[in-house]
Amino acid sequence: VSDGPARIGVVGAGLIGTSITWAARRAGRDVVVVDRDPARARTAAAISGARQGMFADLAGCDHVVVATPTPVIAPVVAELLDLTPDLTVSDVGSVKADVLLEIESLRPHPSRFCGAHPIAGSERSGPTAARPDLFHHAPWVLCPGPSTAAATLAAAEDVARLCGARVTRLSPDEHDRVLATVSHLPQLVASALAGLLLELEPRRVALAGTGLRDTVRLAGSDPELWTGIAVANRVWLAAALDRLAERVRATASAVAAADAAGIAAVLEAGRAGWALLPGKPGGRTPDWEPVPVVLADRPGELARLLAAVGSAGINVEDLRIDHAPDQPAGVVELVVERSALPRLHEVLAAGGWADLE
Amino acid sequence: VSDGPARIGVVGAGLIGTSITWAARRAGRDVVVVDRDPARARTAAAISGARQGMFADLAGCDHVVVATPTPVIAPVVAELLDLTPDLTVSDVGSVKADVLLEIESLRPHPSRFCGAHPIAGSERSGPTAARPDLFHHAPWVLCPGPSTAAATLAAAEDVARLCGARVTRLSPDEHDRVLATVSHLPQLVASALAGLLLELEPRRVALAGTGLRDTVRLAGSDPELWTGIAVANRVWLAAALDRLAERVRATASAVAAADAAGIAAVLEAGRAGWALLPGKPGGRTPDWEPVPVVLADRPGELARLLAAVGSAGINVEDLRIDHAPDQPAGVVELVVERSALPRLHEVLAAGGWADLE
Repeated sequence: VSDGPARIGVVGAGLIGTSITWAARRAGRDVVVVDRDPARARTAAAISGARQGMFADLAGCDHVVVATPTPVIAPVVAELLDLTPDLTVSDVGSVKADVLLEIESLRPHPSRFCGAHPIAGSERSGPTAARPDLFHHAPWVLCPGPSTAAATLAAAEDVARLCGARVTRLSPDEHDRVLATVSHLPQLVASALAGLLLELEPRRVALAGTGLRDTVRLAGSDPELWTGIAVANRVWLAAALDRLAERVRATASAVAAADAAGIAAVLEAGRAGWALLPGKPGGRTPDWEPVPVVLADRPGELARLLAAVGSAGINVEDLRIDHAPDQPAGVVELVVERSALPRLHEVLAAGGWADLE
Repeated sequence: VSDGPARIGVVGAGLIGTSITWAARRAGRDVVVVDRDPARARTAAAISGARQGMFADLAGCDHVVVATPTPVIAPVVAELLDLTPDLTVSDVGSVKADVLLEIESLRPHPSRFCGAHPIAGSERSGPTAARPDLFHHAPWVLCPGPSTAAATLAAAEDVARLCGARVTRLSPDEHDRVLATVSHLPQLVASALAGLLLELEPRRVALAGTGLRDTVRLAGSDPELWTGIAVANRVWLAAALDRLAERVRATASAVAAADAAGIAAVLEAGRAGWALLPGKPGGRTPDWEPVPVVLADRPGELARLLAAVGSAGINVEDLRIDHAPDQPAGVVELVVERSALPRLHEVLAAGGWADLE
């Protein structure tokens, strides 16, 4: 295992850039973080313990990670390659082939650039949403181009590893083909679906349940950011959108014809595709069991419950609070190993919490 | 406020039926629960404190709620209306007009039937997933038909109120039009999208992030249940599917043409539609702040944190554990009122938990 570049730079102090900055600091690297908005860079530096710098300070780095929006990645990479003759550069963008072409047109044969894409995020954005473990066990795709030097690839891989990510290698084109379906298509489908809600009377939208909310959660994303991604991956994304439009149209025909077998086939295929997903929500580890408990909404109630559970030596594997702001009591779902269920039921009974069985 | 029917029956001991059974028991009603699978009815009765019964026992009830899959609602309602001359009946089905027509064809002028639809659920199903407060503050749509008597409507409304739901009244047709867009369409779109994953090499699906997982969460639903709903609401649902297919096709054209303004319009409309949703995930109450804390994964760690937080008089408004099964440490996000932030940071520092600022 190489120790990797000692001095790392990060351009762009958003969620991704700040999380990388933080992880690199934790790994003991000297890190300088830069943003065109000095306040964001200052926040990122304060959170992570890195230094805030100006663009020219990046000349002192061994490797720089570009974590800017897609449309400015190529010009920023070109500027970085001009800073010193040794500096290597990687990025974190969601589209790889188009950006590489643009970099190659600006600086032919960019041996000191390696495309990369860490696949992690959050519904929140900006430096304050960062976490040093954002990329733990997350996929991090390395997409070297034909000119990428081995040392550049090694430096990009080092950043992925110090972030705790699982490294995968794909060609830029293969990356874009897969991401069109698993990431860019869901974004635009969520937006198209949420856009249809504008055709309803607003008070009728109140009849939506949690299913719609989850399905269109991505529609809350930043339109500017996603326009850049969609344009950059236009070929694969347009093909994926066309395939989905055709499936939805065929589903409409099956529904209109009350063709139960045709409808069931769509639902069965969907369930089979869904089952391929890693760590799908609701897909619990088989020996974990959820146990709902009703709690009064006052300080210390949850602590009282968890202290009782902890004293009984029971590990809470997962925990969720279903808590409407206007609701006087909350329901907590404790997830524990099946073997701990009898002890948990004893603890609940002894503490006066409602128990199911 | 009327006291409502004293003796309530529930047919179908799934998530919805069992939750209603439990809420009615808590409201002090005498409740009998029936299922064609006696084991499910037994479980529902044990959980809720209701009596388990045979279908004939429902003759002793004032009002019966039918909580079966869509295709059998009408025949079950007809059988119930034949049991006694006084018994009133409501249902909980996701489609109203088609089922009412079928009931009217079986028992003309059904004055003792009122359609109803509580809009709440869970990714889990069956009696053990039930909660007495499942419907607290949830919409509960009453859809009386032209023959529904006032006393029948009042009994159906009483059930909704004892479950703590917010009662809305819509015509069966209007209900089906709205639900086609806010509930049935998202289900089939999620299934169609998840079905596309089968075209990828399975190991590539591992590159999916949380965005795809949320977007297709509904694809894990029961195909048989949803085939019944789609057939029953075929007219409105086919129209909604056609509208979405056209939008997705138009989006594909904009993307293929690198039409940034056209793509941005889809994303902007999606964000505007998304903003209409009640209680959208990530849409925090403005004066709540999330604070991430890293915890060691051993029994009692979470309790120790929450005990410290509780002793400081800080109320935890929401809490989420991001916990990959193969990850040695978990990140807990505590959501507290902004005014409690300084105290929380003191508690974290005193207890040795990593703090952000």
